Amino acid sequence: MYFDLLMQMKKQLGQINVWLDELTTYATSRSFDPNVLLTARLSPDQFAFVRQVQVTCDMAKYAASRVTGKEAPSHADDEKTIDELRARVTATVTYLETFKAEDFAGAATRKVTTPRWEGEWMTGHDFFLEHAQPNFFFHFTTVYALLRHAGVPVGKRHFLGKVTRHKPE
Amino acid sequence: MYFDLLMQMKKQLGQINVWLDELTTYATSRSFDPNVLLTARLSPDQFAFVRQVQVTCDMAKYAASRVTGKEAPSHADDEKTIDELRARVTATVTYLETFKAEDFAGAATRKVTTPRWEGEWMTGHDFFLEHAQPNFFFHFTTVYALLRHAGVPVGKRHFLGKVTRHKPE
Repeated sequence: MYFDLLMQMKKQLGQINVWLDELTTYATSRSFDPNVLLTARLSPDQFAFVRQVQVTCDMAKYAASRVTGKEAPSHADDEKTIDELRARVTATVTYLETFKAEDFAGAATRKVTTPRWEGEWMTGHDFFLEHAQPNFFFHFTTVYALLRHAGVPVGKRHFLGKVTRHKPE
Repeated sequence: MYFDLLMQMKKQLGQINVWLDELTTYATSRSFDPNVLLTARLSPDQFAFVRQVQVTCDMAKYAASRVTGKEAPSHADDEKTIDELRARVTATVTYLETFKAEDFAGAATRKVTTPRWEGEWMTGHDFFLEHAQPNFFFHFTTVYALLRHAGVPVGKRHFLGKVTRHKPE
């Protein structure tokens, strides 16, 4: 199930690049530079757009690496353009694609910690459900909210991505 | 696992009432009526605050009822004050508390549909992961974003709620 949840996270993360395409199209139609969005904030004491995208990527990355005990690629967090953010999203999606369901054997009870927790730890199960998922969706939805607030024409369909719905029988 | 995910959703949903308390305190300190938030929007073509809270409640409710095949209580969506929204959140949390892990036996393969899908359907598994969870977090985070945008002093701690972290051994 962790694997299924991670693949869902991967799909959602990939939607950010769909949104960034919509941003670029919108910016062209309105003759503004899409990179002005990088510093946008919903509140002056929230992370700016660029950081929201970086953290969304990292939350998905750590959801995978920390509960499986695998190495995570490090990123310099030095993106300065929408194109560089697109590449960051793509790199993270590519990393998530290296995971298989069997990597999550034992994940539920693995001890997970982060550099900021000074030795405190969570089980892999609690980390995934209480920390990784809510944090991922927090930053993911904030990226979307910043685009909506700026007038970019994205909707629920762009948010959800492809959904597995079957025709009536 | 669906049950664990639902209980996590229940915990998150309950945090909205913590945020509404912060809103009320903030509004008092700044001498404004907290109910003015009800019509706030991040974008003119997004749902207003009141509707974002209602839909967050419904997404959690339907995550529970539709994948288990149980009846869901209906709500009139007529909340007109922050206090009424608080009661709506509490009613939904109380409904979610009636569920047990065994209610989710067979949930993965259950056929799930909604009145708007004209007979189309999803498996319970896909509905939970691809539809219910992302939609829940979408509206939940939008509620939070509207409060942050309005200056209400809530932070990540208020967003996540209580997290199960253990002391170093």
